[in-house]
Amino acid sequence: MTTVAAYAAPAAKAPLERTTVDRRAVGENDVLIDIAFVGICHSDIHQVREGWGKAIFPMVPGHEIAGVVAETGSGVTKYAVGDRVGIGCMVDSCRVCVNCRAGLEQYCTDGPVWTYSAVGKDGLPTYGGYSQKVVVDENYVVRVPEALPLDAAAPLLCAGITTYSPLRHWNAGPGTSVAVVGLGGLGHMGVKIAHALGAEVTVLSQSLRKKDDGMRLGADRYHATSDPATFTDLAGSLDLILNTVSAPLDFGAYFSLLRTDGAMVNLGLPEETVAIELQSLFGNRRSMSSSGIGGIAETQEMLDFCAEHGVAAEIELIRADQINEAYERVLASDVRYRFVIDTATI
Amino acid sequence: MTTVAAYAAPAAKAPLERTTVDRRAVGENDVLIDIAFVGICHSDIHQVREGWGKAIFPMVPGHEIAGVVAETGSGVTKYAVGDRVGIGCMVDSCRVCVNCRAGLEQYCTDGPVWTYSAVGKDGLPTYGGYSQKVVVDENYVVRVPEALPLDAAAPLLCAGITTYSPLRHWNAGPGTSVAVVGLGGLGHMGVKIAHALGAEVTVLSQSLRKKDDGMRLGADRYHATSDPATFTDLAGSLDLILNTVSAPLDFGAYFSLLRTDGAMVNLGLPEETVAIELQSLFGNRRSMSSSGIGGIAETQEMLDFCAEHGVAAEIELIRADQINEAYERVLASDVRYRFVIDTATI
Repeated sequence: MTTVAAYAAPAAKAPLERTTVDRRAVGENDVLIDIAFVGICHSDIHQVREGWGKAIFPMVPGHEIAGVVAETGSGVTKYAVGDRVGIGCMVDSCRVCVNCRAGLEQYCTDGPVWTYSAVGKDGLPTYGGYSQKVVVDENYVVRVPEALPLDAAAPLLCAGITTYSPLRHWNAGPGTSVAVVGLGGLGHMGVKIAHALGAEVTVLSQSLRKKDDGMRLGADRYHATSDPATFTDLAGSLDLILNTVSAPLDFGAYFSLLRTDGAMVNLGLPEETVAIELQSLFGNRRSMSSSGIGGIAETQEMLDFCAEHGVAAEIELIRADQINEAYERVLASDVRYRFVIDTATI
Repeated sequence: MTTVAAYAAPAAKAPLERTTVDRRAVGENDVLIDIAFVGICHSDIHQVREGWGKAIFPMVPGHEIAGVVAETGSGVTKYAVGDRVGIGCMVDSCRVCVNCRAGLEQYCTDGPVWTYSAVGKDGLPTYGGYSQKVVVDENYVVRVPEALPLDAAAPLLCAGITTYSPLRHWNAGPGTSVAVVGLGGLGHMGVKIAHALGAEVTVLSQSLRKKDDGMRLGADRYHATSDPATFTDLAGSLDLILNTVSAPLDFGAYFSLLRTDGAMVNLGLPEETVAIELQSLFGNRRSMSSSGIGGIAETQEMLDFCAEHGVAAEIELIRADQINEAYERVLASDVRYRFVIDTATI
């Protein structure tokens, strides 16, 4: 067991403060990782505030982890000391259910072991990446290619895979027209990856405030959803809408932008109950779906894809003592586009 | 122009009564069909009662039409006098839009010309199959195979294709598990066709009242949705749910029955606004969609499939003067499973 420095919320809604947590001894299949950088994901804030229901405290958030292997268990075969690696939202799963066997560990029928605010197979709570070290089974570790800087790679472990997986599943690529709703942490990765996949990319944002950024990140078109003309101009033109906004939307209006067989995929999980009128889903075999992160093999595939295409997050590097302020700025949409904590400052 | 006997609703919500309507002269590409049988679809009742909004009156309902070609235009190449044919929900469409070119005339971007309560390309209202004759462009006519009796084939033109098309689109077949919600006119065709396609078929009905019928029609399992155990027993077990019920459902509960990547497809269009909680759609990349009838080529494919597999509707043959009574019985779910009008009695 190792005691390591971390930033934790001692209770729901409390500010995060410096503390220590214990990491388990490095087991046969484990790697000990010196965390270098960790992204601040909006879901860290949802969970610290118990917006999605009861959580486990003290909570060390952080599931966009990039670092370097510092020690390996005797049975580890995939990683060696010095390897650049990442950890995303999961650190374990049952490994035998139909979803785990299909490489869809994120949909493990027992529920995966989440990187924080969960209970591991050892019965102990998991603590996330706002911390200096973490011990994880090598099967839930991915390799960060040399071409990717560790700081800008960290957000790929959640924001990257959360957009890459549905873009691949719904076949975004040359000849397809993809819209990304919301240009935040998730949205900016959606634009970059959809563009790198060869799709025509439209940003649908409340205003044109970030238009220059959106176009620079790879968008072909940028429309304000506050302008009713957007919904007539783009009617029936999209194959896929990735909705990164968790606030209620007029889903019927977005549906009308889809072509026959188009899909609207929700990535953000709202805290409040959002009602959709069933009638607005009718017509042209359009579908409404959701997607959550991606499997381990797919996460590796995404990192390799990003390295090959020069894609990483746009980040603002912060010190650990700026975390609480950063949370307020995320809630105010005042970040372009991901805060990443330099864990040397913890 | 030909004047033919028909049954029509003179105004919204009025009972249907015997009248006459004019059919256009047989044009170059038209066929004149002696209608033998016409099914009573629930949507006839929705439309007569203006449940889906403003309709055109007098209204001759009927879009499950089976009959025999009596005359052909000079340019007709596909049909000859004496051929057994059917007409479904559409009698024309733009023919040039992306959907028409893809054989998805039902999603014609201009809107197809519906068989009744619509306006044809000649600017005149269309009248449906509760009538002795109809004139239709040969491209919107399908052939009824010899193996199918005309009376039991008539409902295939709407109820058959409305279930066949989504079963095919969502790949129902050997190794897949399909549930049909509601065992009415649509539902009983869904069970028969899903079974003929080789899928494992579950009926989800409010009670077990029609269980014997369901099993006889091809179901492997029959569960009452009024029994909470249904939702635990079948949790995560279905690939596809065809919802034929237009009344509000607890969509979240039905969603929980789907496997990863499973789809719930709504076929019935409710008259009232139905709200779904967005949260209930989250998890396991399940999707909610809808489907409307099928294209012309797919309707022919469906008829050929039904002939090959000995599938047709279970019908109760009625006289034209029983139409109003039949409507009341449909609304009371007192029909097993489709009323078909013998048009000789009009």
